[in-house]
Amino acid sequence: MTTGVAVAATSASASAETPELDPAFALHKGGKIEIRSTVPVRDADDLSLAYTPGVARVCTAIADRPELADDYTWVSNVVAVVSDGTAVLGLGDIGPAAAMPVMEGKALLFKEFAGVDAVPLCLDCTDVDALVETVVRLAPSFGGINLEDISAPRCFEVEDRLRSLLDIPVFHDDQHGTAIVALAALQNAARLTGRALGDLRAVVAGAGASGVAVTRILLEAGIGDIAVSDSKGMLYEGRDGLNPVKQALARDTNRAGHTGSTEEALEGADVFLGLSGSTVSEAAIASMAPDAIVFALSNPTPEVHPEVAAKHVRVVATGRSDFPNQINNVLAFPGVFRGALDVRATAITENMKVAAANALAGVVRDELSETYIIPSPFDERVAPAVTAAVAAQARVDGVARAK
Amino acid sequence: MTTGVAVAATSASASAETPELDPAFALHKGGKIEIRSTVPVRDADDLSLAYTPGVARVCTAIADRPELADDYTWVSNVVAVVSDGTAVLGLGDIGPAAAMPVMEGKALLFKEFAGVDAVPLCLDCTDVDALVETVVRLAPSFGGINLEDISAPRCFEVEDRLRSLLDIPVFHDDQHGTAIVALAALQNAARLTGRALGDLRAVVAGAGASGVAVTRILLEAGIGDIAVSDSKGMLYEGRDGLNPVKQALARDTNRAGHTGSTEEALEGADVFLGLSGSTVSEAAIASMAPDAIVFALSNPTPEVHPEVAAKHVRVVATGRSDFPNQINNVLAFPGVFRGALDVRATAITENMKVAAANALAGVVRDELSETYIIPSPFDERVAPAVTAAVAAQARVDGVARAK
Repeated sequence: MTTGVAVAATSASASAETPELDPAFALHKGGKIEIRSTVPVRDADDLSLAYTPGVARVCTAIADRPELADDYTWVSNVVAVVSDGTAVLGLGDIGPAAAMPVMEGKALLFKEFAGVDAVPLCLDCTDVDALVETVVRLAPSFGGINLEDISAPRCFEVEDRLRSLLDIPVFHDDQHGTAIVALAALQNAARLTGRALGDLRAVVAGAGASGVAVTRILLEAGIGDIAVSDSKGMLYEGRDGLNPVKQALARDTNRAGHTGSTEEALEGADVFLGLSGSTVSEAAIASMAPDAIVFALSNPTPEVHPEVAAKHVRVVATGRSDFPNQINNVLAFPGVFRGALDVRATAITENMKVAAANALAGVVRDELSETYIIPSPFDERVAPAVTAAVAAQARVDGVARAK
Repeated sequence: MTTGVAVAATSASASAETPELDPAFALHKGGKIEIRSTVPVRDADDLSLAYTPGVARVCTAIADRPELADDYTWVSNVVAVVSDGTAVLGLGDIGPAAAMPVMEGKALLFKEFAGVDAVPLCLDCTDVDALVETVVRLAPSFGGINLEDISAPRCFEVEDRLRSLLDIPVFHDDQHGTAIVALAALQNAARLTGRALGDLRAVVAGAGASGVAVTRILLEAGIGDIAVSDSKGMLYEGRDGLNPVKQALARDTNRAGHTGSTEEALEGADVFLGLSGSTVSEAAIASMAPDAIVFALSNPTPEVHPEVAAKHVRVVATGRSDFPNQINNVLAFPGVFRGALDVRATAITENMKVAAANALAGVVRDELSETYIIPSPFDERVAPAVTAAVAAQARVDGVARAK
């Protein structure tokens, strides 16, 4: 996610000169996570069970019956948070070493919000084949793979290939975490305005990782119509110079056949989803349908200022913590992996992502309002609700190895 | 290390059938380590520092000044425990999944004995190029690499290539951990019997990872003469069919020119070091020089039973916890990496290994006796002594990035 990133970036050089003056640096001193033992090693007897000779009996048992690794190692509770540092927050390609604080933060949130052990792995390679090959070699040590901050379009191929090669969950959070939370928020905004998703015509600005994933999950969830734009305008079949991912998107979207700009497509639209870093004019927002819904998720500068949008539309959400309705991935990824790991899922299906969004949306009941369509990350009902929904759907979809 | 392993292996099938009856399985339930956060995430303010937007300032600072990663991530305290599962304890090639309990145990001991965070990584590849390539890609996430249970002779090339490619410590514990502890024990055995290492003629049975490393460190430390045997007899220059590692060993050892069996070479020898899994006769032990020293380190069956050897020699050590003088790697690797990480060492030099052995030997003072040439792993003086010696030698050798 990119919440508040460029704000950070602008002040970063100053911070780098005087880190001691910045509370973020004080908090990061020595890192944010550690390894702890869960068993005692007080004496030779403990040592003979936790290490040799006792450990050899456990190793031999797993060699004989591989499924025992689920019960007698930490692997079934461990997720690798894997990045190549090419698309870190809004900072771009800052490399693996500089990406580590984000991946450590991810590991911290996995544990704090869902009890998932997560190991940050920043890889010194950016080639798709190299990334796929490396993660496949690492797979025996992990119960799941969370891909993070890998630039588009490589991120799509890396995830697709890993999903087909591995029998553990592979989840690119920049895509699916954002998609799950955006779907949940849109479901509640539709409910608030007395409509179903099928009643809505949406325009998505941005065909990167999050724009593509949000569009895909909205199609999966039955959005009425949806059209997507990139920096060159709307995606439509036959547009020149589209990469394969955008070609597929053009084929599957834009039934209305928009060929112009994002702003032209917004006229009469019910929903605007900004995932682009671009801007849209107040006039374009004003041209949307009654009871319109605007998710201006670019950071730190939303596509349209939320207070300007609020003059013309019914519901406004952003990626920022300083406005209502923050679309925050932390609402999704901890519970998604907790649920997948709890049933030893071999994959995270599209149904499981939609189930996570439904459960997240369902946390907001009578409190639903224009300024409360999505819960706070600190709402303690969130992770358990997402966990239960993802685990149940995994069983329905037949990808659960455990009950 | 291989302490007590085959004992374990023999009872393993039974254990696999009824794990609940084996205390080792009860202890391993759910694994032996976890990830814990070291900073609070109680509210949105904490979240804005540990994650976005605050984390972005730390990332940007590291991108501008890479050395800041030492202070503001956990990397400088984290060691990867890397194995391909091809030579696990005495169990052989059981694969990466079944190797995990040993690597988790290693991580547990790193933290408990020296406060080092260690991440167990069992890799699904055994090709030397693939192992080297994978660890190089992982390197930005770690302050050091502990190679573990990789079969010989691949382990030598993997370590040599990684040492030349990386600017963080790379240490194959099966080689150097055993070598450091064996050298420390031999120094004390020599002191006990009023001799210097230079006065001793040693015979090493075994030219695998530990045999080669023990021989190398004893040469480094100034052993009088040393000769090595493999399953085909003594290594000497010109012997047919030697791999490059054994050819080099043959060139650098065996000044006496032994060409026969291990037992023939033992006649009149001062020291026998068994690292082979083979056996030697009581008669051969009896043919050694007065005040002889026998380290019969094979497990579970020492090359000669320690009580039999004790009838003929002055000092006997084994790899087993149920006899005096256990040669246990746990005495070395935690302090070696603690010392290297404390000064941000770019490598672990041969001098640093010898310094670790000297410090370990020095922990045993007036208590020195035939049955106490090496301290217990639970002697709280051990890790601090090894840590201090390794850090100091790193500065002397010019491989310390921090004071």
